[in-house]
Amino acid sequence: MAYNLLKGKRGIIFGALDENSIAWKVAQRAHEEGAVFTLTNAPIAMRMGEINKLAEACGAVVIPADATSIEELENLFDKSMEILGGKIDFILHSIGMSPNIRKGKEYGDMNYDWFLKTLDVSALSFHKIMHVAEKKDAMNEYGSILALSYIAAQRVFPDYTDMADAKSTLESIARGYGARFAKLKKVRVNTISQSPTKTTAGKGISGFGAFYDFADLMSPLGNASADECAGYSIVLFSDLTRKVTMQNLMHDGGFSSTGMTPEIMQLFEDRTNS
Amino acid sequence: MAYNLLKGKRGIIFGALDENSIAWKVAQRAHEEGAVFTLTNAPIAMRMGEINKLAEACGAVVIPADATSIEELENLFDKSMEILGGKIDFILHSIGMSPNIRKGKEYGDMNYDWFLKTLDVSALSFHKIMHVAEKKDAMNEYGSILALSYIAAQRVFPDYTDMADAKSTLESIARGYGARFAKLKKVRVNTISQSPTKTTAGKGISGFGAFYDFADLMSPLGNASADECAGYSIVLFSDLTRKVTMQNLMHDGGFSSTGMTPEIMQLFEDRTNS
Amino acid sequence: MAYNLLKGKRGIIFGALDENSIAWKVAQRAHEEGAVFTLTNAPIAMRMGEINKLAEACGAVVIPADATSIEELENLFDKSMEILGGKIDFILHSIGMSPNIRKGKEYGDMNYDWFLKTLDVSALSFHKIMHVAEKKDAMNEYGSILALSYIAAQRVFPDYTDMADAKSTLESIARGYGARFAKLKKVRVNTISQSPTKTTAGKGISGFGAFYDFADLMSPLGNASADECAGYSIVLFSDLTRKVTMQNLMHDGGFSSTGMTPEIMQLFEDRTNS
Amino acid sequence: MAYNLLKGKRGIIFGALDENSIAWKVAQRAHEEGAVFTLTNAPIAMRMGEINKLAEACGAVVIPADATSIEELENLFDKSMEILGGKIDFILHSIGMSPNIRKGKEYGDMNYDWFLKTLDVSALSFHKIMHVAEKKDAMNEYGSILALSYIAAQRVFPDYTDMADAKSTLESIARGYGARFAKLKKVRVNTISQSPTKTTAGKGISGFGAFYDFADLMSPLGNASADECAGYSIVLFSDLTRKVTMQNLMHDGGFSSTGMTPEIMQLFEDRTNS
Repeated sequence: MAYNLLKGKRGIIFGALDENSIAWKVAQRAHEEGAVFTLTNAPIAMRMGEINKLAEACGAVVIPADATSIEELENLFDKSMEILGGKIDFILHSIGMSPNIRKGKEYGDMNYDWFLKTLDVSALSFHKIMHVAEKKDAMNEYGSILALSYIAAQRVFPDYTDMADAKSTLESIARGYGARFAKLKKVRVNTISQSPTKTTAGKGISGFGAFYDFADLMSPLGNASADECAGYSIVLFSDLTRKVTMQNLMHDGGFSSTGMTPEIMQLFEDRTNS
Repeated sequence: MAYNLLKGKRGIIFGALDENSIAWKVAQRAHEEGAVFTLTNAPIAMRMGEINKLAEACGAVVIPADATSIEELENLFDKSMEILGGKIDFILHSIGMSPNIRKGKEYGDMNYDWFLKTLDVSALSFHKIMHVAEKKDAMNEYGSILALSYIAAQRVFPDYTDMADAKSTLESIARGYGARFAKLKKVRVNTISQSPTKTTAGKGISGFGAFYDFADLMSPLGNASADECAGYSIVLFSDLTRKVTMQNLMHDGGFSSTGMTPEIMQLFEDRTNS
Repeated sequence: MAYNLLKGKRGIIFGALDENSIAWKVAQRAHEEGAVFTLTNAPIAMRMGEINKLAEACGAVVIPADATSIEELENLFDKSMEILGGKIDFILHSIGMSPNIRKGKEYGDMNYDWFLKTLDVSALSFHKIMHVAEKKDAMNEYGSILALSYIAAQRVFPDYTDMADAKSTLESIARGYGARFAKLKKVRVNTISQSPTKTTAGKGISGFGAFYDFADLMSPLGNASADECAGYSIVLFSDLTRKVTMQNLMHDGGFSSTGMTPEIMQLFEDRTNS
Repeated sequence: MAYNLLKGKRGIIFGALDENSIAWKVAQRAHEEGAVFTLTNAPIAMRMGEINKLAEACGAVVIPADATSIEELENLFDKSMEILGGKIDFILHSIGMSPNIRKGKEYGDMNYDWFLKTLDVSALSFHKIMHVAEKKDAMNEYGSILALSYIAAQRVFPDYTDMADAKSTLESIARGYGARFAKLKKVRVNTISQSPTKTTAGKGISGFGAFYDFADLMSPLGNASADECAGYSIVLFSDLTRKVTMQNLMHDGGFSSTGMTPEIMQLFEDRTNS
């Protein structure tokens, strides 16, 4: 069901890879809600993905951009404003990559060049996007900028390694630039801290199933899906959340406020008794 | 602008006193968004207020109820379901009262019967409402229950005294009952932590002006208004936030994530130099 | 090993029931560290306990007091100052009781008179103690006041029901009175949020074993023991923590900052594969 | 007054620059408490400092090391164990540097190479130290590793720019490596979030005076001093805090739990009325 929540709004969506991506769902939903937007991803990620299908379905143009490159971001903002016919109202940042995780490095054995790469791609890219948006004066007043995060920014999870540190950095950048953009253009900046999600990236991680199941059992409403995350993102782009800023918003079925559930209790009682 | 976000939804709204009340604005906005609802307040508060005007404008019935009385709450839920023609989808709790504050008692000199009264009226009432909703099986699946809170639950403000403790208790109850209602009916329970707001209650507090101005200067987007709070409440009642639960959601222009602003810095530099 | 950390300090210790109590361990440890103090408990709790043994070992006098009674607290402070020969440097509050839990009431079925009783005994008692200390001008400058809490104040645990709300209230009172006592006498007020502990009270709770084991597996250093909690309490009474105030200090082997451990991951992988 | 809290313990202290440094005070205090340790700093920082005076007073050897260089850290750990005659019990990380702040760059105009440098020097150095400690098997069981942080990791302050992000990263690394070192050697890892402190570095920041004064007025106990921070650090190195891990410990006179103080209220009332 659509509500016209984003009617007349223009956006840029980073990070749609394939139909399991949260960014993909956000694009679909933003389209249904009346927004126009451009889609972007790193050239290398786009070759693997099916972003053109999405673009067609949404009437969107795809503009490749490495989100760590100021120059490519400048091109992206210039072209987006030209194509969309005006300044930008919303931005979604759904970008994360850790060479250390890809190579299976443990947290005690990080490659530090890669660690900095993880921070640059997964966190500083968010700063760079806002920096370029500011420099180009590309944001409309009361615009909304959003990044996707994960609770590993606050609590330790196995195998999340330097991506946890990147998410902490990302959330800090949201606060820091949020304070700045509030003054400049009344623009708000937030992060959604999303449940483990069965994206193509997520499912590739070893032990993801166990991890997903535990989170689901520890969340009174169960894990939030990618579709539900898209709905929440739309809300944060809409005019109904204009004074929400510099927040990390838990979208997790209650996981973050749960110490233990009856289901986990039962599991441990069975274990004790068996 | 309206979006039909609450089309077909039934609610109960506690605490509309007069046109400055947040609950009043929520009622107006819920009406615009297509909801039907009943309005309720304590008999004593209603005599002072103008709730009938609101009821008329919204096509709503007013059902007096002391929210600390299980019996009156039972009557409220019975009548609401009868009048609205079905189970309830959303509830707003906007109730707070401290006899100690009314009588100007300092935090070092609380009357403890009144302290318990503050907790009963301002926090346990929220538990009682949910208890009656559960007992009556009055909530629809995926319903949303919301209470208004304040950041005094986390940080100390002058003269907020036992109301700060009540807000902490309220937020704890939101988590505790949220875990329960999630399992029972997939119902979510949250609190919004709202900026200082120029309600009739707020403006009556001594020093409110200084307090409001400081918060405004410490919030990069400025204080959130009652109207904006109504918009955010609608979002939390809508189907777009079904997996947000057991959260305390800051609606404060960034106050909670701000340590100091350039404006405050300037003020202190001027003070140092003068 | 003792360090003379509390040499010359006078205290009042609430809540020593038997040798499994945290307050009991704190008393032993405070004695070893050179403090003198009085011991107190509710008359009803004392009949069950063995507090006189402790008193003898520590050279302490026992003064019965119902911590919800201002009158009995006044007597306690008067006598303590007389016996100890001066004003008080530290106070431990280790008091919690929920009639609803005792009677096995679920969170959806609270007796509300008992709920208020839980809050009065477990949280407001802390306020009353500080109120009497202030009124009697009983605290020395740079004194330290401490209460024991639990992470159920922030996250929901099964069967913790209204005690969770009481702990939230308790922590809020620590902040509120902490702000006040700082100005009055430079006294600090904090709470320690302690791991599940095998006290006589704890062990009586149904499912405590499963609960304890889960927390232990979710804490990288394992659960903190009562002895270790005593050590941490001493630290907070000492002159080495004079600027730590209005804090809730996690003493939990890392539980609060842990989302999942490799041990829990393994458990879920085994479960998935079996 | 000394307590022998660190008798027989061996440590490494990073970051003593001059007598205003927190690390300098920690070294003095650790010496008084019976510890032996080595002192280290970046070669470039040492030329400016007076670390040799400190070394002499403490009977400590100075080992220059760039904390971003694995090789130099390896040398530091090898030599420290050799000189001190065994494995290490405690480490203090007091390192922070932002080229962007030095050059007066605003947050909207960061040099991104420098941004990565800020993260590398101020945050990743902490990871590298622990990585080398692990690889060399240099930590004793129940050791304690500590870094100094600032509340800009959670809330935005003017002109703190990328150092705020570095502190968020640092605190995340403390959690992540804390989980790991707990399992390996029961070692704990924490950060202290310290009040603004009149160090040589601090005093050099423009507007530091206004910033310091505001924090002082917003802290019920006033700002914590460098000496007091040294005391708290000793506590965290001692055997009395063995189960405290993965925590960020506020050492701030109550600033973090304060929304507004009566002093600030007065200031705003005067301002309104003038």
